[in-house]
Amino acid sequence: MAKELKGVQVFAPATVANLVCGFDVLGMALQQPQDVMTMRLREEPGIVISHADGYDLPVEPEKNVAGASLLALMEEYPEKVGFELIIDKRIKPGSGLGSSAASSAGAVVGANHLLGNPFTKEDLVRFAMNGEKVASGVKHADNIAPCIYGGVTLIQSIFPLNIVQLTAPPMYVTVVHPQIEVRTSDARQILRKEVQLKAAIKQWGNIAGLVAGFLKNDYDLIGRSLEDVIIEPVRSILIPGFDDVKRKSKDAGALGGGISGSGPSIFMLSREEYVAKGVEDVMIDVYTRLGIEFKTYVTMINYEGAKVISEV
Amino acid sequence: MAKELKGVQVFAPATVANLVCGFDVLGMALQQPQDVMTMRLREEPGIVISHADGYDLPVEPEKNVAGASLLALMEEYPEKVGFELIIDKRIKPGSGLGSSAASSAGAVVGANHLLGNPFTKEDLVRFAMNGEKVASGVKHADNIAPCIYGGVTLIQSIFPLNIVQLTAPPMYVTVVHPQIEVRTSDARQILRKEVQLKAAIKQWGNIAGLVAGFLKNDYDLIGRSLEDVIIEPVRSILIPGFDDVKRKSKDAGALGGGISGSGPSIFMLSREEYVAKGVEDVMIDVYTRLGIEFKTYVTMINYEGAKVISEV
Repeated sequence: MAKELKGVQVFAPATVANLVCGFDVLGMALQQPQDVMTMRLREEPGIVISHADGYDLPVEPEKNVAGASLLALMEEYPEKVGFELIIDKRIKPGSGLGSSAASSAGAVVGANHLLGNPFTKEDLVRFAMNGEKVASGVKHADNIAPCIYGGVTLIQSIFPLNIVQLTAPPMYVTVVHPQIEVRTSDARQILRKEVQLKAAIKQWGNIAGLVAGFLKNDYDLIGRSLEDVIIEPVRSILIPGFDDVKRKSKDAGALGGGISGSGPSIFMLSREEYVAKGVEDVMIDVYTRLGIEFKTYVTMINYEGAKVISEV
Repeated sequence: MAKELKGVQVFAPATVANLVCGFDVLGMALQQPQDVMTMRLREEPGIVISHADGYDLPVEPEKNVAGASLLALMEEYPEKVGFELIIDKRIKPGSGLGSSAASSAGAVVGANHLLGNPFTKEDLVRFAMNGEKVASGVKHADNIAPCIYGGVTLIQSIFPLNIVQLTAPPMYVTVVHPQIEVRTSDARQILRKEVQLKAAIKQWGNIAGLVAGFLKNDYDLIGRSLEDVIIEPVRSILIPGFDDVKRKSKDAGALGGGISGSGPSIFMLSREEYVAKGVEDVMIDVYTRLGIEFKTYVTMINYEGAKVISEV
């Protein structure tokens, strides 16, 4: 058996893509839940993936989101290297909380550390987007970018890739993951390819307001801008209880919120912790009544992104 | 003849609506050109309008943009009042530089001052939107808001009216007004009522980037975000020389720019004054070659908005 090479443990956070009015361009990293990965350099080239969870995800590098991301990284690295990767997924696949992005981002952040950090964060996003392509067929970055940069990110442009980090005032995030299946590809297919100009104008007024609210620490403006007139009315149909959760969460004092990514998870932003906990009660109540299994989180924005926790 | 009642002189600035990617929601006030109005309280109720310019605009209050705005203000004022108004338009009507907004905004700002400032700026925007309705049939606020607030404004929502003031780093604005006619109603009619979702996503990535660029004083981000994939490709056809001006202005160092409002004026933002003057040379060159009469301005952002200059 080969001698033990340097290894690291990587934490990669869940992320909320879209942030209601920022479809395909905004995203936010959460403190909870997080995937945990253990990575080692191998003496031989190649990627060996195993799972410490029960999700039965593929282990062939090309079919695995972390593997595809590492392959993209290795293509740009001048020497031949190999990685061993043990993934302990704590962000449930298909939750709408950026589970695939966490694996993709975590893998390249860990690999970059093991190689002595030759790559920039923007490079890492580029590599990890290959994982998203494996997961959903599209190279999108709205989960990858916040997962790697932390905080709130804006994909101002995808080709060429332009990532903008946004500050935001302290906020609590309440998340409910109703355990139903909404496939990203289905959630994308039900969207109309054309939208009313009127609705688009409303939407860009809201995204402009949300970005201004974040940067100006204006909670009222954030709340007023968390409105999606284009995607949510279509996608929320796939999520039982959505309207109820949203209305009652706002009644409980939440600033606002909506579908996390393509769902089925729903997130709500609150200024105070007690409000965020009240929102959790609302979510528990709605899904208990509906008889749908669910999981909730009360967490905050994660400003660090995926990171190496310890050398192992 | 009635005795002379208290009077004021009001300056009301030109404004650039849309700011390329912020169709119908963003606007910016300019230091030049400005309309000048002289206003007095009358002893009898009613509005008497006269013009000190040669534009032959209507003087009947309901048909005059300033008159319609004053009528809206008077409706909410508890007492019967009357105004005399002499308008000296220095912002040419139909230039795309918010000429009607300047008259509407200037009139209500002057009236508010004469009445002892009973109204908020937001009230004044609401009143002045009635002038825009007279001018173009639509109650829009993307020129009115910057004309009254100054600086850069976002109409996050029009019903209910939510105006957000945005900071911006120092910038020079070069404007060319080619003396051709583009009617606001025509410029609106040629727009498609539906847009591709893909294009809308690009557009809201850009407006989010532009707002972030303004608030973060990030000139590069401002430059990258000044792109309009929806309105400009259609409307620019109505403006001879547009593509040439845009390309050559950027070659000369401008951050970017585009159509001012519904045109035909074109504006370009620059970080340095010498660049802004180089952009002016480009504009002069293009329209001289085309044999189209034009007027240019090299100016800056106006942070005060319409204001009372002196009591007369």
